[in-house]
Amino acid sequence: LEPAILSSPSRSGAFDSTIDRRVEEFTESISFDFRLYQQDITASLAHAEMLRSQGLLSEDEFLQIEKCLSEVRAEIERGDFKFHRSLEDIHMNIEAALIERLGDVGRKLHTGRSRNDQISTDLRLWIREQIQKIDYLLVDLQRAFLGIAEREFDVIIPAYTHLQRAQPVLAAHYILSFCEKFERDRQRLSDVRSRVNLCSLGTAALAGTTIPIDRGQVAEKLGFGGVVQNSLDSSSDRDFALEFAFGLAMIALHLSSWAEDWILWSTAEFDFIRVPHERDR
Amino acid sequence: LEPAILSSPSRSGAFDSTIDRRVEEFTESISFDFRLYQQDITASLAHAEMLRSQGLLSEDEFLQIEKCLSEVRAEIERGDFKFHRSLEDIHMNIEAALIERLGDVGRKLHTGRSRNDQISTDLRLWIREQIQKIDYLLVDLQRAFLGIAEREFDVIIPAYTHLQRAQPVLAAHYILSFCEKFERDRQRLSDVRSRVNLCSLGTAALAGTTIPIDRGQVAEKLGFGGVVQNSLDSSSDRDFALEFAFGLAMIALHLSSWAEDWILWSTAEFDFIRVPHERDR
Amino acid sequence: LEPAILSSPSRSGAFDSTIDRRVEEFTESISFDFRLYQQDITASLAHAEMLRSQGLLSEDEFLQIEKCLSEVRAEIERGDFKFHRSLEDIHMNIEAALIERLGDVGRKLHTGRSRNDQISTDLRLWIREQIQKIDYLLVDLQRAFLGIAEREFDVIIPAYTHLQRAQPVLAAHYILSFCEKFERDRQRLSDVRSRVNLCSLGTAALAGTTIPIDRGQVAEKLGFGGVVQNSLDSSSDRDFALEFAFGLAMIALHLSSWAEDWILWSTAEFDFIRVPHERDR
Amino acid sequence: LEPAILSSPSRSGAFDSTIDRRVEEFTESISFDFRLYQQDITASLAHAEMLRSQGLLSEDEFLQIEKCLSEVRAEIERGDFKFHRSLEDIHMNIEAALIERLGDVGRKLHTGRSRNDQISTDLRLWIREQIQKIDYLLVDLQRAFLGIAEREFDVIIPAYTHLQRAQPVLAAHYILSFCEKFERDRQRLSDVRSRVNLCSLGTAALAGTTIPIDRGQVAEKLGFGGVVQNSLDSSSDRDFALEFAFGLAMIALHLSSWAEDWILWSTAEFDFIRVPHERDR
Repeated sequence: LEPAILSSPSRSGAFDSTIDRRVEEFTESISFDFRLYQQDITASLAHAEMLRSQGLLSEDEFLQIEKCLSEVRAEIERGDFKFHRSLEDIHMNIEAALIERLGDVGRKLHTGRSRNDQISTDLRLWIREQIQKIDYLLVDLQRAFLGIAEREFDVIIPAYTHLQRAQPVLAAHYILSFCEKFERDRQRLSDVRSRVNLCSLGTAALAGTTIPIDRGQVAEKLGFGGVVQNSLDSSSDRDFALEFAFGLAMIALHLSSWAEDWILWSTAEFDFIRVPHERDR
Repeated sequence: LEPAILSSPSRSGAFDSTIDRRVEEFTESISFDFRLYQQDITASLAHAEMLRSQGLLSEDEFLQIEKCLSEVRAEIERGDFKFHRSLEDIHMNIEAALIERLGDVGRKLHTGRSRNDQISTDLRLWIREQIQKIDYLLVDLQRAFLGIAEREFDVIIPAYTHLQRAQPVLAAHYILSFCEKFERDRQRLSDVRSRVNLCSLGTAALAGTTIPIDRGQVAEKLGFGGVVQNSLDSSSDRDFALEFAFGLAMIALHLSSWAEDWILWSTAEFDFIRVPHERDR
Repeated sequence: LEPAILSSPSRSGAFDSTIDRRVEEFTESISFDFRLYQQDITASLAHAEMLRSQGLLSEDEFLQIEKCLSEVRAEIERGDFKFHRSLEDIHMNIEAALIERLGDVGRKLHTGRSRNDQISTDLRLWIREQIQKIDYLLVDLQRAFLGIAEREFDVIIPAYTHLQRAQPVLAAHYILSFCEKFERDRQRLSDVRSRVNLCSLGTAALAGTTIPIDRGQVAEKLGFGGVVQNSLDSSSDRDFALEFAFGLAMIALHLSSWAEDWILWSTAEFDFIRVPHERDR
Repeated sequence: LEPAILSSPSRSGAFDSTIDRRVEEFTESISFDFRLYQQDITASLAHAEMLRSQGLLSEDEFLQIEKCLSEVRAEIERGDFKFHRSLEDIHMNIEAALIERLGDVGRKLHTGRSRNDQISTDLRLWIREQIQKIDYLLVDLQRAFLGIAEREFDVIIPAYTHLQRAQPVLAAHYILSFCEKFERDRQRLSDVRSRVNLCSLGTAALAGTTIPIDRGQVAEKLGFGGVVQNSLDSSSDRDFALEFAFGLAMIALHLSSWAEDWILWSTAEFDFIRVPHERDR
């Protein structure tokens, strides 16, 4: 049920015989990168629009591709799209569907790009969205802490050094200390965003392309702040993913230190707070 | 040779008998935080100046303290200052010298501060300096790479994917890709600096102080961009140290990937470059 | 569809109102510990047998439980068993099914045990099986390397220091060096096994039980080499899991160093070997 | 003051001009491997004895070398031996002293060995000794815990799950749980020892040697349980160091969990114990 037409073009150059199933299992990424489908389609649409502007796709070809990508997106969202492990990753799965449905027109979408810059761009788009979501959550959390600080303004608690009582402080002072931590977390994510928010489409495999593409147009369409400067750097650059992971680790550290405090405060021995079980109304 | 006067005040509250030598060994930090002596003295001078402005030190007391701190600094730099492990850390070692030499005047310097905000401030000053130094080194490195790119402009090399030859590129293109990486490293350090560059002196143990100090004056004198907002947050905050370590790890990653390339290129099999042994003139 | 009877007894003591769905999501483990179902049922059968021997279950009760557990196992294997997130983990899911089908007889299985010792025992059984499987795979790999060593016995290759050609060696000598590494890996797993292979059922929550259970019988039935000595130690002990992870990391390190060599040898520059794409016949 | 005779033979082949001081700094290890001097000299003595047995050193040459190595050891212990960074490591520093004092006789000691197998052997000897020391310390600790368990046999404390009081237990039961953890730590170190305790001298650079050495004699003299099997494996094998580090990490984990408990128990809120400050008599 995985017709020959779907065999991974990405491997067709290197592999001249049927791939051992274990190699396929070891090298596939579709089992986890399927979640990039939104970003992959969005980037493909921007790329297709640019190809049309550059005269590399006719108006009709562009419209066919646009329609087909929208259908694929809808199918994926409905759970009706069949992913094939033999097609390795999200790019190949979507592109194979395009080729199957549109023939050579579908093939034209890959003009002037490579899977290398596709995955980099998809990842940048995805991280940019996650940063936005997490930033909203951090603001919510700050608001919740601020609410507690106002509500419990009169409460005085011990502050500790080495877990020994040191000085009395307002509970609000303790609570607001976390707003500071979350504020730094937000700043850090914002710093990461400035390096994430550059478009790497056009890097192609690693040396760019001789086809007259317009990287600026694609970047603008996708809302990027600019384009990356060096294709060799960009094709191997995942600094932004490491930075993002570091930013998340810092947030987790802050949440963990808050949790540790409240677990301690909930003991029979400390007994400072009671954490309710039911949903807050 | 470690007179009673030098016994660590920081422990005098909690410990009512002679400390076991093994506890002393386990808890000391002077064997490594001695390197913060510059920052510790600089911060103490700014603190002393503020105490004078606030009328908490007389002009004469301030001058005695200023002179004595300068002497201690000179002694440390000449290798003539004797550090005592029983005094635990850099703050106690310097303060004990002050008390030994100036008596109660020396004791007055600790007014409105604690070792907790001292170490935080020292560390912030130290990291700020390191960031400056490393930034200069990165610029040097970018210049050196740029020089190679210009000198070897005509050279064409293979670019690789999965260590297989993929496309020919200019050697200069490869070389300049590292300038991009180092540029991101510089941006990251600059981002870290914005969070390092806040003054935490005045946080005291953790709850601030009722003594009328002027945090703004100290911050300005030390060249900080502002003061931290919440003393409980600040007394436990070492986010900036983790961020700095992360920034260094990223630089190391880039240097390592460069080294790996050139080790490979220096093999008999690749034979792309010869790395000279002698110092470049 | 998750009737009240199925509400998690493990929480019923602590939680007196409906649990917020987000707490349920955060604390559940069934989404990944479902894979312990074999071990959980095997351990439950051994426990039930012991309860019968001790007169804590009648013959009839035991037979009902045995039959029901076998049915549950078959349903899980057929994919017909419905796991409920609200039941938190594999133990609760299976036990709830038992209670639903057998009523109070199903409840009796939990006599003299706790989820704390169940998960510890399940994990020990699972790791013991994985060690066995991995050991077989390592032996296979050693055999394959030995085959290459025999087949290519006449081939001479350079051995490298710092990636520079150092001395000529037989390819077989290189190949056999990996057999040594895998042999150490096998020894390490065997050492881990000696500490994994102890039965922790009977530890109960953490303090053992006053019910007259026979830990030795359960341990023997499950093929363990003995029982753990201290219930407080055992209830928190996951040393064996860390050791197992370390053993796996060492294997991965060896495999990675082999892969790195062959990737290098497959370059156009080294060109020592050609790795085929198709399945070996 | 570092005469030409001392220039590192290890680099003389590769480096035909004076080494840049920064390279020297980057590649030296003498600043930390000086601590292996005991092991290095012990291994050299065993190697020299074997060379004499094999007729590769005359009786007189052996005696000169033996006497000179003893002198060097005594000088190092007295702090009179001058280490040179330009000589890179402990092997070169000691060997250069030998050559300086004995001329060509000193040079003969290096017959049939390389720095590669020297460092491997030194490290194995050093780790074997550390394991012995740590094992004694763990036994001491178990005895101390056993003493507490006997002394406080009547004390009953709460045992906790999720830091909530769960069941009453004997304090002795809690204390003895750590004896179990330390016992596993001892077993793990013993397992590591079985893989550490193999002699790698004779591996030479990586391909062994054609000189008729007797590896078995050296191994026996050094108290090793046997010799390593494959020179290519052995020259790169540091599994034993990783295993040792893992064993230490596990011990640290157990000590840390003990410390965490007692820090909590020492709070004003828990107040279960008072830890004295003075040395126990």
